[in-house]
Amino acid sequence: MLVLIKLCSILILLIGVQSNPDRRKNYSQLKSCDIGPLAEEIASYESVVKNIINYVVNGPFKGKTYDELSKFVDTFGARPSGSQILEDSIDYMIQLTKDEDINDIVTEELEVPHWMRGKEEITMIEPRIKNIDLLGLGQSVSTPSEGITAEVIVVNNFEELAEIPNEVVEGKIVLYDPIFTTYRETVVYRSQGAVRAAEKGAVASLVRSIAPFSINSPHTGSQNYNNNVKKIPTAAISIEDADLMRRLFNRGQKIILNITMTSTSETKTSRNTLIDLKGTLNPEKLVIVSGHIDSWDVGQGAMDDGGGLFVSWAVPVILKQLNMKPKRTIRSIFWTAEELGLIGAYAYEEKHRNESHNINFIMESDEGTFAPRGLAVGGSQKARCIIAEILKLFESINASTLVEEDSPGSDISVLIKTGIPGASLHNANEKYFWFHHTEGDTMNVESPEELDLCAAFWTAVAYIIADISADIPR
Amino acid sequence: MLVLIKLCSILILLIGVQSNPDRRKNYSQLKSCDIGPLAEEIASYESVVKNIINYVVNGPFKGKTYDELSKFVDTFGARPSGSQILEDSIDYMIQLTKDEDINDIVTEELEVPHWMRGKEEITMIEPRIKNIDLLGLGQSVSTPSEGITAEVIVVNNFEELAEIPNEVVEGKIVLYDPIFTTYRETVVYRSQGAVRAAEKGAVASLVRSIAPFSINSPHTGSQNYNNNVKKIPTAAISIEDADLMRRLFNRGQKIILNITMTSTSETKTSRNTLIDLKGTLNPEKLVIVSGHIDSWDVGQGAMDDGGGLFVSWAVPVILKQLNMKPKRTIRSIFWTAEELGLIGAYAYEEKHRNESHNINFIMESDEGTFAPRGLAVGGSQKARCIIAEILKLFESINASTLVEEDSPGSDISVLIKTGIPGASLHNANEKYFWFHHTEGDTMNVESPEELDLCAAFWTAVAYIIADISADIPR
Repeated sequence: MLVLIKLCSILILLIGVQSNPDRRKNYSQLKSCDIGPLAEEIASYESVVKNIINYVVNGPFKGKTYDELSKFVDTFGARPSGSQILEDSIDYMIQLTKDEDINDIVTEELEVPHWMRGKEEITMIEPRIKNIDLLGLGQSVSTPSEGITAEVIVVNNFEELAEIPNEVVEGKIVLYDPIFTTYRETVVYRSQGAVRAAEKGAVASLVRSIAPFSINSPHTGSQNYNNNVKKIPTAAISIEDADLMRRLFNRGQKIILNITMTSTSETKTSRNTLIDLKGTLNPEKLVIVSGHIDSWDVGQGAMDDGGGLFVSWAVPVILKQLNMKPKRTIRSIFWTAEELGLIGAYAYEEKHRNESHNINFIMESDEGTFAPRGLAVGGSQKARCIIAEILKLFESINASTLVEEDSPGSDISVLIKTGIPGASLHNANEKYFWFHHTEGDTMNVESPEELDLCAAFWTAVAYIIADISADIPR
Repeated sequence: MLVLIKLCSILILLIGVQSNPDRRKNYSQLKSCDIGPLAEEIASYESVVKNIINYVVNGPFKGKTYDELSKFVDTFGARPSGSQILEDSIDYMIQLTKDEDINDIVTEELEVPHWMRGKEEITMIEPRIKNIDLLGLGQSVSTPSEGITAEVIVVNNFEELAEIPNEVVEGKIVLYDPIFTTYRETVVYRSQGAVRAAEKGAVASLVRSIAPFSINSPHTGSQNYNNNVKKIPTAAISIEDADLMRRLFNRGQKIILNITMTSTSETKTSRNTLIDLKGTLNPEKLVIVSGHIDSWDVGQGAMDDGGGLFVSWAVPVILKQLNMKPKRTIRSIFWTAEELGLIGAYAYEEKHRNESHNINFIMESDEGTFAPRGLAVGGSQKARCIIAEILKLFESINASTLVEEDSPGSDISVLIKTGIPGASLHNANEKYFWFHHTEGDTMNVESPEELDLCAAFWTAVAYIIADISADIPR
């Protein structure tokens, strides 16, 4: 019977679904989203959703996600890729899970970069002496010990840089000063800035922090050198200091900086952590929930991605406590070394490539755990129609929105681009980039109530996807 | 005739005005605020207000306040009391004023403290190694060169501290962790924290930054030692680190810090700057507008109090450009050394005590120059009724609110407590304490449009008070 319903559903989907320009609202009300009898089946999970929300938001699990996250963050603080503290924090999470009597835990080793910043200082020498706060970008090389002293050229974008003759850029420091629009649009100046500046002969590159708001807070992040281009030191400065230099530059005042940066770079071993809540009917099929356990070396990694880590940890724990066993296996993954280039995700994809057809759906929370609003879903239209139907069950907590996204999440994008459908937690994260990759990524960004809502939502969504008769179609 | 109207007005005020519980709205509509024929006289300034607003907000002065402030801030940056850069910035403002063909400028010398922070570091040693960002508080003494290593006691308030036996506090570091309510309520833990902790035998004191929001931003500020109590090193830490230590402390975990701070303290000479636009009828009578030119040594002093400085500088400049000459003298004062204890204001009050009866009204902007909303007024009920009537003329820019305050402003409170009526700029400064005394006090807090509105409002209010037939009664 279940197989029949499943086949039916897929058939209907294959026939009925067409492309849909509406990216957000009432997704599942569209005619093109007629998923047949599966809609009724999904609706029958209403009481399951209520039970989970009650248990987590008002019941015995209330406050637990925040409390455990806060103990974890207070104990370890920042957990940079390749550090011993990251490995210790992985061991802690394994023990915390075992304490919940969940023992189906595997770790998978991989090589990860261990980049460590040392001394970092910028002094503006002209037109006046001023300390410039900075954070070196991931993998940045060191300057000579006496630093680099050079004049600054301020550009808004790559086009402006391209128009300046190479002989003008040579020997100078390029400051990219792009005004934040969206992260995806603006972050290219952080990730590609050093290479593009070095190609023109610059001796160092700086970037206005990729953020819409600041209290003189520099934001670090990854950047990609090109082995065919000279590696130059590269760092982020605050919005305020970028604006200062922009004003000085526009007034025709010569800006001279001394930049002194040191860093070391090694390779270390780390681990992805896989926790399975085995499926009753199709244990080989996987619904994955995930977050990354590593963080930048500044701040505490409470938001990025402590929150995502803990709501994903909570999924098997809550289901175990409620004695709820879905048909498919729910796997909770704690990715390692996300921040230096999704290293853990690439290793997982490679290692599990032969069984990737078994991944039914993959979820990640890595954009904040503020109040949940729904899911940002990548995959086929048919997949999105089923997810939209599931999201209808979360109207009571205002988390029914489906956002279409080609490449949701961070780590999981590695798997989604191979054709696996997946989703990222869509949440009220309007202030996410205020704190992202700064010293301000602390427990103060997190709220017990919002974490409860996220944990309940994440758990119920994963459970339903893992339990319904139909696979999520590719 | 003018004298008659004036006498009439005062008589009516003396008879008609009673106490008024309404602190904000429709102040001048109250029966107790019948100011007689003066109301009509004030209403006749409507076109004056329109002209000034037009000139500043849409006309030739548009953007000038922001542009000049930004050149000033970018040129000098922070201007701490006693520093050469503060004196240079005073010379710059004098020249900037002379460039506007205003030459009635006097400076008055006084002795000011010159406290300079040196190295400041806190390392949490237990329960784990963590750097704790800090800013030493004004006049803080140094630690021994090896620092102070001691256990932390976290208290919410003085009452909690009082309940702990002295022998428990002895040799420890006290951390005050008061949640921000209002600045006035909370700031006592910064200003009195060191003395109260030292009285109990503490070796250092820390305070949760006096702020409602943070991106791991410590906020410095003044504090008052007592010569009869041992001076111990004292600093502010971020809200985030205070919360971290509070959580560790509540869990019973021992917190050990090493605090290393150095500073120097000297006395230097600085100057108050007085710029007069002489009155046509009663030049001896003064309407004072003011802001302070010194700042903390962190950030750029753009908001505190660059904005107040420049809207007060703008008053004589705008009136001069418009060739408007009020009956009384308008004096623009740039106070020095406000941050270390209203030093400039105390010196002015002492020097001018014999002529203080000539101060008709005194205004200061030192709480932000966001969109103007009206005035916070100290003085008699009669004085407030007249000001409320004037504020009616600013409904078009939504700046008609009168807030009753016993001691408005910072510097001017020194004069207001001698009985002189005065007012502080009431503005949309809800985020003022996000940036106050931090590295984030930069031009990014300021807006050209809001500064235009403030400058226009400040100028028009001062002009009307300086020009109407009635003095502001005491």
